[in-house]
Amino acid sequence: MPRYAQSLAAFTIPGLPEVRPGDDVAALIGDALDAADIQLKPGDVIVVAQKIVSKAEGRYVDLADVQPGAEAEAWAAKTGKDPRLVEAILGETTSVLRWRPNLLVVEHKRGWVMANAGADQSNIEGREGERVLLLPVDPDASAARIRAALEARYGGPYGVLIADSVGRAWRVGTVGLALGAAGVQTVADIRGQLDRQGRELKVSIVGIGDEIAAAANLLIGEAAEGTPVAVVSGLKVLSETQTGADLVRPSSEDLFR
Amino acid sequence: MPRYAQSLAAFTIPGLPEVRPGDDVAALIGDALDAADIQLKPGDVIVVAQKIVSKAEGRYVDLADVQPGAEAEAWAAKTGKDPRLVEAILGETTSVLRWRPNLLVVEHKRGWVMANAGADQSNIEGREGERVLLLPVDPDASAARIRAALEARYGGPYGVLIADSVGRAWRVGTVGLALGAAGVQTVADIRGQLDRQGRELKVSIVGIGDEIAAAANLLIGEAAEGTPVAVVSGLKVLSETQTGADLVRPSSEDLFR
Repeated sequence: MPRYAQSLAAFTIPGLPEVRPGDDVAALIGDALDAADIQLKPGDVIVVAQKIVSKAEGRYVDLADVQPGAEAEAWAAKTGKDPRLVEAILGETTSVLRWRPNLLVVEHKRGWVMANAGADQSNIEGREGERVLLLPVDPDASAARIRAALEARYGGPYGVLIADSVGRAWRVGTVGLALGAAGVQTVADIRGQLDRQGRELKVSIVGIGDEIAAAANLLIGEAAEGTPVAVVSGLKVLSETQTGADLVRPSSEDLFR
Repeated sequence: MPRYAQSLAAFTIPGLPEVRPGDDVAALIGDALDAADIQLKPGDVIVVAQKIVSKAEGRYVDLADVQPGAEAEAWAAKTGKDPRLVEAILGETTSVLRWRPNLLVVEHKRGWVMANAGADQSNIEGREGERVLLLPVDPDASAARIRAALEARYGGPYGVLIADSVGRAWRVGTVGLALGAAGVQTVADIRGQLDRQGRELKVSIVGIGDEIAAAANLLIGEAAEGTPVAVVSGLKVLSETQTGADLVRPSSEDLFR
């Protein structure tokens, strides 16, 4: 028998349907778990792609309905983006941090620094380029609702993360990040623990919510074969108090603005 | 029987000894795998904490031997850091990007943007504050050596990542990143694949090397109970051509310098 020091398992659930506005995401997840004969274990973390939460919340914007203002027209002229899309992005945005052709890097109202405020035109129904999907209104609240519903149905306790794929300033490629969280530790402060030489560890705040989201994102594909929900099992990371907002560095501590 | 759509497993290996300069990391990993009766599977990705690679390479700097130059003295005066430590950091650095008290954010010679060029004073032997451990000289080469030795011993094919915990500009906490890689896909370009509506996906380069490192980092603790090697199993991510360097965004594309 192999003897592992620690281990985790992650898996995706087959058979989730295309999500539509008004759908109950937790009910869809539960039905898919039951159909696939998958039983959640206490301590499991359910990682949900933000896109299906956003679709259930009906966060679509039809660009035909958007009247771009002067600021949107100005950024559109600079970047070459559709001014109506820019208007939709600015509506989600506190400030524009950087731009280049076809890209606006902004601070989202919830503090996330990301391209185009997370507004997405892929994997949504509608005529090419005429419809965008914004991020969920409050991913921590969405996570809390899904957690409560799954715990009511199966017992729990569980953690829930709402994850997105987000680009980085200095690294190539997107990685999974936890925008929302409920019931799960997102930031583990291991300062004060002793290292192997008995000295106090110094810089030791670990963004484990983002690491769990990244692990799940290895299975949550973005392409047609994708499945939007993964379960990460085997970690001891439940928390009653932490949220996705705890992963956002306050702008007062930001050295790169 | 539960039916998962996709799944992965990750585990750490017990019983790895404290690593010393000159040690053969791949041999230590193999001996620990054998002792724990763990058999690698073809396609497994072995994630090795940079710190043990660095220790095996003897990348220690005794600060008593360091003579700080004028630039190091100037940054030390600004930041309040030990000028000898700053000298060691600058020796690894292309340019200093930002600073605040007790922190230098630099571009490491290999392109990584990180605090203090990754120089580390925790979990190393020696008098408090008098010795630092630099990052491995060439983590891609280290990964290739470990991969070759493990494949010679067990067959393979395997992927190997050299991982570190690195802070982010806009997020709280460190996450695992892949500094070095051999045999494994680090950057997956899924542009050109079709989404569920049959449209081409647009921004779809995924930093899967970093996501695998993050997943492994959930198990590779930094504190005393830590185990420095994890195996991630169940992914189809082998590649003969990609490396850790592929995850570094060229500074010409950096909007945040």
